Amino acid sequence: MLRPSETMADRDRIVNLSDGVFAIAITLLVLDIRVPDIPENLVSRELPEALLSLWPRYLGYLLSFVGISAFWLIHHSIFRPIRAHDRVLLYLNFLFLMVVAFVPFPTSLLGEYGDHQLPVAIYAATLAVGRLLLTAIHWYSTRNDRLLNEPQDPATVRFFLRRGLTIPAIFLLSIGISFFSVGVAIGTWLIMLAVDALVIRRRFR
Amino acid sequence: MLRPSETMADRDRIVNLSDGVFAIAITLLVLDIRVPDIPENLVSRELPEALLSLWPRYLGYLLSFVGISAFWLIHHSIFRPIRAHDRVLLYLNFLFLMVVAFVPFPTSLLGEYGDHQLPVAIYAATLAVGRLLLTAIHWYSTRNDRLLNEPQDPATVRFFLRRGLTIPAIFLLSIGISFFSVGVAIGTWLIMLAVDALVIRRRFR
Amino acid sequence: MLRPSETMADRDRIVNLSDGVFAIAITLLVLDIRVPDIPENLVSRELPEALLSLWPRYLGYLLSFVGISAFWLIHHSIFRPIRAHDRVLLYLNFLFLMVVAFVPFPTSLLGEYGDHQLPVAIYAATLAVGRLLLTAIHWYSTRNDRLLNEPQDPATVRFFLRRGLTIPAIFLLSIGISFFSVGVAIGTWLIMLAVDALVIRRRFR
Amino acid sequence: MLRPSETMADRDRIVNLSDGVFAIAITLLVLDIRVPDIPENLVSRELPEALLSLWPRYLGYLLSFVGISAFWLIHHSIFRPIRAHDRVLLYLNFLFLMVVAFVPFPTSLLGEYGDHQLPVAIYAATLAVGRLLLTAIHWYSTRNDRLLNEPQDPATVRFFLRRGLTIPAIFLLSIGISFFSVGVAIGTWLIMLAVDALVIRRRFR
Repeated sequence: MLRPSETMADRDRIVNLSDGVFAIAITLLVLDIRVPDIPENLVSRELPEALLSLWPRYLGYLLSFVGISAFWLIHHSIFRPIRAHDRVLLYLNFLFLMVVAFVPFPTSLLGEYGDHQLPVAIYAATLAVGRLLLTAIHWYSTRNDRLLNEPQDPATVRFFLRRGLTIPAIFLLSIGISFFSVGVAIGTWLIMLAVDALVIRRRFR
Repeated sequence: MLRPSETMADRDRIVNLSDGVFAIAITLLVLDIRVPDIPENLVSRELPEALLSLWPRYLGYLLSFVGISAFWLIHHSIFRPIRAHDRVLLYLNFLFLMVVAFVPFPTSLLGEYGDHQLPVAIYAATLAVGRLLLTAIHWYSTRNDRLLNEPQDPATVRFFLRRGLTIPAIFLLSIGISFFSVGVAIGTWLIMLAVDALVIRRRFR
Repeated sequence: MLRPSETMADRDRIVNLSDGVFAIAITLLVLDIRVPDIPENLVSRELPEALLSLWPRYLGYLLSFVGISAFWLIHHSIFRPIRAHDRVLLYLNFLFLMVVAFVPFPTSLLGEYGDHQLPVAIYAATLAVGRLLLTAIHWYSTRNDRLLNEPQDPATVRFFLRRGLTIPAIFLLSIGISFFSVGVAIGTWLIMLAVDALVIRRRFR
Repeated sequence: MLRPSETMADRDRIVNLSDGVFAIAITLLVLDIRVPDIPENLVSRELPEALLSLWPRYLGYLLSFVGISAFWLIHHSIFRPIRAHDRVLLYLNFLFLMVVAFVPFPTSLLGEYGDHQLPVAIYAATLAVGRLLLTAIHWYSTRNDRLLNEPQDPATVRFFLRRGLTIPAIFLLSIGISFFSVGVAIGTWLIMLAVDALVIRRRFR
């Protein structure tokens, strides 16, 4: 049997590894914004426009930074009451980290071909899968009392599980929308973000 | 309600994530200094000059390393008395980290086109925004006593808030200067660094 | 002599450095999946196929993510009872980290030339050496009681040492197989993963 | 005044940031070993030779991994007794980290043009400066008793300061040697490593 202090150290090591992956994934995003290559004598004339034309890259940076930060915030509140772990929790967490570390690729795809349907669908699918895995981690940890340091309020747990299924559902819906309009699909994500922030606010008032 | 030890662990996780972003951002800067490509038979003759001609890159490395280190030092002293956190603090910190992780791009731009006005202005604007966000974090945390472990000396707080507004103001001023002379604008940053170090020194003597 | 708290801090710093290398190695893997370059007017037609043709890269990402995660899990259980360290342990750990940080290169090689014998052999050899170094760390730490906080169950130690030699042996065997069939060699790894999971499960029932 | 626990947390945050830079610097080294580009029909014939011809890159990886690991080991033993910090210690540590984060560039240079004098000299100079900064941190911390948690044995301190000056001196000497023979200069580093390991061993027997 492990002593409590060892269990805590275990849990901390998982959280530290996860935070390392989060930190690197959000910092690698910037590598996708590349300095345009302009001949010296044309720089003053062409640089402003060249930098403006990178806007899908800036948007991708912003979007994925917000997305990964939101993942971190949820991971943070899911792991707060967790005091022990087992193989299943570790496997689920690694699957989730695999998605987090993958995010720079769909971001890059969106930055390059953001006006096409496929990249928008891949991006939405990646974030939906990541969110579902977080929901799975949450569901699993609250089903196993011995993983938690104290019982959680069932109403709060249910609220967060519902939220953790609604958000991926909307991402999947936006894939359907992307067949008709890429712009509306991306707009859905922004509306979802705003509504989610409002709901959370009301919940905690 | 959270127990004190949990609040501390929370605060530590935010600091750890931030330190991860700081560490990666300063280490990625070196990727921007690329080894020149020279045919084998010309290496001895052309390598010295080719390496010297990379000086704007070395300068960019140095400048951004100092800039991000300074951000870390300030982040470090702002977070030292912080013992709890709320959503606003988290959001402000993520916005700040988004700027820190972005710094390699304006650095790269400055290393490539450092003798032009626009890259100098973008660089100054990035550091000004980063510094303003740090000031906002500081301002917010000192306005909320329950985030701190003990009340701060009001005179010291005021001194640091004033400093936290003066430095971005000088960065913004240097953007104006950059329209007349790029060299003088960059010089402004160095003078500001030196004066700031002197003022801090006198304050703590 | 060191006091216990100092020894623990020492051990934590080694674990933290290792976790940093783990986190970065798994997050760098994604840089190897590059967005295909397609002229604007052909994107809708050619992008789906171009993305599908990247499948060896996705497979490499998956494989190395699983491989490095497995290394982390084993490193985690080896270091759990370790409470002190000496030069030999540090050197072995650095050698092991050198292999972990190297994994992105054979992964990239496999993603580019995965249907050829040499890349498959290099990949298997890299993972075999990494696993052997973990076994060496385990063997060394259990031979030195003063490194551990409590004596380990000899049967369990023997079970894990046997496992820690069998897995590299199978990797080396797969190199021999790769001369006849590259597909069968890669299949060996997957069978090994499945069998290992089963054996571990039975052991802990 | 800071309470002891706060001072420790401060010191830990500096060590964590440093370990982040160490971990990233050693993991980025692998990005310098690039998969050779060979047409599909020539892979079986040309890949073995192409991989062998990358040997200066493997050597660079090995050399810098050992170099940065050695820096970490020394940093580790210097910071072990440190319990507080001041501005000077922070500045020295940032200067040192700037050199650590820079190491991938001279490594890349050595991997590309390792048979020429200038890259060998730049590599030796980088490691010499890094080692001197570590010696400066050591010297500064032992001169300020209030930074340490207990007085250090003066003979041991003197031994390590002497070592911390001898090694950079040999690196600088190897720059002189590199004008006559690049191979002998690189050999000097390896002999130095071996002799240093022997001296350390005898000291602690």
